[in-house]
Amino acid sequence: MTILSAIKAVQERTVTHLDAFLNNANIEDSQLKDAMQYSLLLGGKRVRPFLVYTTGQILGASNEDLDAPAAAIEAIHTYSLIHDDLPAMDNDDLRRGQPTCHKKFDYATAILAGDALQSFAFDLVTSHTYHDVSAENQLRLVNIIAKSATKMCAGQSIDLLNTDKKPMTLANLQAMHNLKTGALIKASVLAGAITANATQGQIEALTKYADAIGLAFQVWDDVLDITSDTETLGKPQGSDEQANKSTYPALLGLGEAKLKAQQLVNEANLTLEQIDADTSSLSQLAQYIIERDH
Amino acid sequence: MTILSAIKAVQERTVTHLDAFLNNANIEDSQLKDAMQYSLLLGGKRVRPFLVYTTGQILGASNEDLDAPAAAIEAIHTYSLIHDDLPAMDNDDLRRGQPTCHKKFDYATAILAGDALQSFAFDLVTSHTYHDVSAENQLRLVNIIAKSATKMCAGQSIDLLNTDKKPMTLANLQAMHNLKTGALIKASVLAGAITANATQGQIEALTKYADAIGLAFQVWDDVLDITSDTETLGKPQGSDEQANKSTYPALLGLGEAKLKAQQLVNEANLTLEQIDADTSSLSQLAQYIIERDH
Repeated sequence: MTILSAIKAVQERTVTHLDAFLNNANIEDSQLKDAMQYSLLLGGKRVRPFLVYTTGQILGASNEDLDAPAAAIEAIHTYSLIHDDLPAMDNDDLRRGQPTCHKKFDYATAILAGDALQSFAFDLVTSHTYHDVSAENQLRLVNIIAKSATKMCAGQSIDLLNTDKKPMTLANLQAMHNLKTGALIKASVLAGAITANATQGQIEALTKYADAIGLAFQVWDDVLDITSDTETLGKPQGSDEQANKSTYPALLGLGEAKLKAQQLVNEANLTLEQIDADTSSLSQLAQYIIERDH
Repeated sequence: MTILSAIKAVQERTVTHLDAFLNNANIEDSQLKDAMQYSLLLGGKRVRPFLVYTTGQILGASNEDLDAPAAAIEAIHTYSLIHDDLPAMDNDDLRRGQPTCHKKFDYATAILAGDALQSFAFDLVTSHTYHDVSAENQLRLVNIIAKSATKMCAGQSIDLLNTDKKPMTLANLQAMHNLKTGALIKASVLAGAITANATQGQIEALTKYADAIGLAFQVWDDVLDITSDTETLGKPQGSDEQANKSTYPALLGLGEAKLKAQQLVNEANLTLEQIDADTSSLSQLAQYIIERDH
């Protein structure tokens, strides 16, 4: 299977299960449920579920056990997008070419849909009937998702505090992205590993892989904000520059930023060699991250 | 110990542990941490922690084991207050006589502080070192807190959708409050019970107790909005009427609303008789709920 068809398969499985989990959760207000569902099913690359499923599969977990952590992490990611798009934050009207949640519904509903998607994530990961995940490992899943969600908020706070200020140093930019994007990407890889009952050695190698691709993902997002166009991106091209945000191309130059992304992917692939299993799909995903056009 | 000194003892223990858990969580942005801490330590009756500790103690749990679920539930409650106060929701400038989070900090920080308090809650309940709570029961704690947090959002959504509309029916008002306030109060009682490894029979009796006091709590809040004053309440007196919200006194009349509150407390106390333990502190708490002046 090529990486693109593997990604497509994960996208379909993720959508099916997110929808089923949401219907099972019996959200007791239809407008709130509609807003949650709208944002959950708006599309998206589903990179985080891909990492959960692929890492877990490589190490022997079943798809049925991976469905819950994959959906939970995507729900957390979706909540963060809804809140980041709000007028008080990044004030974006478009997400994936469609109206953002507060544009489609209203401001209050978008706040509540984000809030409810977060608790929904922790509900579904602890409601799921697992075949082969111990209670201790289920607790580790909750803990790693919760910690990464808190880091995500810290990263967004640092990002907002530095917007329209003097440029961040490269080290501070990297620390910010590690929190804002990297933590949940790492949680995705580790959630797959924990669901598969991975060894400590496997977890250490995968942690390095995840750190590298998390950063590559962000560097490439910054590159695309310059090199892509609004239609392909599904959001306004050039919005980083317009918002006066520090980015890798702004600090390094476009060519160096692209080079850095490739170096990070090379690093990621080197650490995969420490794992005694067929990690080719994780390696292909790393390369995909810096070849995608949106 | 009188009920007031018991409440005071819980308030002190709750503040100490919330602060310690927050410091341990190592929030990686100081403004975000300050906003979380400001709202967590702003005061408050700490009714939910009281229910966690008292229910747990009655059934034999240690305070050390109860610290985490009590703090987690209070963190969820605090996040909901921060978000409910936002301009897009209830637009309140004062909470407990102090500036609300978005007034003290800013709109974006208040959204993020609420978001981070929710993930912080699930982090701390799964990071705690318990002496006598099985992994399975820790998962039940996460699940019950998560489900009640989602219900809370549904309740707030219904509340907002009905503000400035024609009056709700009594049944709809009650359903809304069961979601918005009742679910987390019930989760508090059940979290104490689960931490104490309660029997199914005990849990059933406590569920009825919690349903009754949750509703009594809300009826009395509506009564206070009419009979108390702004200084005692710590928020503007008469704000329900001004916001054109359905309330128990508006639907039943003030005298009938007070009577309903007392009937609910009587019901709550009757169900406590089914529990073979000294439940007097839960009974006193029920009475306190409808005698408090704020």
